Amino acid sequence: MIKNAIVNQQIIHKTIRAFKKQKLTVEQLNTLAEVARHTSSSMFMQQFSILHITDEKKRAQIREISGQKYVGADGDLFIFIVDLHRNQSIRRQLGKDDGRLHQTDIFLQGVEDTVLAVQNTVNAAESMGLGAVILGSVTNSPKELLAVLNIPEMTFPILGLQVGIADQKPQLKPRLPLESVFFENEYHKINVADLKEYDETVQTYYDLRDSNRRIDSFTKQVSSKKLGTKETKRDELLETLHSQGLCLK
Amino acid sequence: MIKNAIVNQQIIHKTIRAFKKQKLTVEQLNTLAEVARHTSSSMFMQQFSILHITDEKKRAQIREISGQKYVGADGDLFIFIVDLHRNQSIRRQLGKDDGRLHQTDIFLQGVEDTVLAVQNTVNAAESMGLGAVILGSVTNSPKELLAVLNIPEMTFPILGLQVGIADQKPQLKPRLPLESVFFENEYHKINVADLKEYDETVQTYYDLRDSNRRIDSFTKQVSSKKLGTKETKRDELLETLHSQGLCLK
Repeated sequence: MIKNAIVNQQIIHKTIRAFKKQKLTVEQLNTLAEVARHTSSSMFMQQFSILHITDEKKRAQIREISGQKYVGADGDLFIFIVDLHRNQSIRRQLGKDDGRLHQTDIFLQGVEDTVLAVQNTVNAAESMGLGAVILGSVTNSPKELLAVLNIPEMTFPILGLQVGIADQKPQLKPRLPLESVFFENEYHKINVADLKEYDETVQTYYDLRDSNRRIDSFTKQVSSKKLGTKETKRDELLETLHSQGLCLK
Repeated sequence: MIKNAIVNQQIIHKTIRAFKKQKLTVEQLNTLAEVARHTSSSMFMQQFSILHITDEKKRAQIREISGQKYVGADGDLFIFIVDLHRNQSIRRQLGKDDGRLHQTDIFLQGVEDTVLAVQNTVNAAESMGLGAVILGSVTNSPKELLAVLNIPEMTFPILGLQVGIADQKPQLKPRLPLESVFFENEYHKINVADLKEYDETVQTYYDLRDSNRRIDSFTKQVSSKKLGTKETKRDELLETLHSQGLCLK
C-alpha cells in the first residue's frame, strides 16, 4: 500500500454521528463549498446544487423525516440535490425546449454529479479534522422532504451530509473482503460460505462497539429487514421523481 | 480558504484524458482498490463492485461504445457497477426472497455507493500523482456494455474510470459561480443574465485551450445538442435497467 496524507485518511474513514455544539467557521464552510463546486461533472453540465440548512425549523423537519435523532442536531447540515432545473431554465430562457432533460439517463448523470460532490466534500472535511456523516435517511419520505426544501420541478434531493467537530471515536467498520468486490475482467458470483470469516469479523466489531446490543453479521443484515419487503414512504420514490418531471422515460 | 494537501489538490482538479503507455504498478492498483473498498456505503449494504478491464479486446469494445478514442487506450480502465446481485444471492442462499432489491430506491442507494467510491478513488489517484478521467461515455449504449462485461442480473455499470500517468497539462476548467450552486435554506432560480461573466470566462478558457476549434460558452452548451432531443442508445437506459431486474417500481 502506498501511504500519503489522503490515502491514510481514506483507509481509516469512519462515519461520525455525534458532533460538538459549535458550527463550522465561515472559512471551513467556504472551503467545503469550493471543493464541492470543483468536482468533476458529466458533460460539463454541472447538474447539482447544495442547500445549507441553517433554519432550525427545517432541521427539525428533516430530522423527523430521517427518523434519526442526530440528523440536524449538532454540526452543519447540507442537502445535495440533483439540479436539472437550472439547465432547463437556461434552455427555456434561450428559447429552447427541454431536450433530453426528462429522460432517465440525464437524471442519472445528475445523480452522478451530485454524489461525486458529496464524496469530495467528505474528503475535504476529514482533511480539515472534521467528522462527517452521509445521510441517505433524509430521503426516507421523498415527498415530505421536497415540501420542506421547497425546491422546484426538475430538482431532487439525493443525500444529506452533516459535518462538524467529532464528539465520538468509532472503530473502523470492517468492509467486504477485496476479492468479493474487485474483479479482473470477469465478475465472480458470491458464495455465502466464503463470507464466513468476514461475518465473524463484523460480529466482533459490533460486540466491541456495544456489547449490550446484539447486531447481526453482514449476511444476516443483508437477509433481514434492511432489504426486506415492507411498506415505507421510500416506495413513493419513483412517483415522486415523476412528479418532479424526472425519469419520465 | 483553508489550505492543506487534500483541499489544494481538489481545488485544482483537472480531468486527464491522455496517459503514458505504462500501466499502474501492483502497489498503486492495490491502493486504489483498498481506498474504493473503504468508502462509505448506504445502510452498510456495500452495493457496488469494480471490474478492472485488462483484456485488450474488451477495452477496444468499450472504447467503441464510448465513441472516445482515449477510452481503454493507455492507462488502467475500471468499470464501477451497481451490484445488487451480491445481496440478492446472499438472501437467496439464506432462503429469503428478494425483498426490496427490485425497487428504485434500493437501486439509487447502489448508485450512491458506486459513485462515492468513484470519487474516493479519483482523490486517491491524484494524491499519488496520477491522472484520472471519469467516463460516463462507457454507458452510451447500456445494452452493449452489459454484453461486453458479461455481468449478471441485478448489476449495472454506472461509470468508467481511467487512471494513469498524465501525458497532458490541461488548464483549470472554470465552474459555475458559487452563488449559482450553493444556497442557504432557500433555492434561488437562475437568470441567464447573471451568467454573462461566467460565459465569458468559459469562452476564454476554450479559446486558450484550442484557438482553432470554437467551443460554445456554458449557456450555449446547455442549450445546444448536449442536452438536445436526439435519438441515442442512451434512450435504452430505462428498459435495460428493467431487463436487469432493477427499478421495477
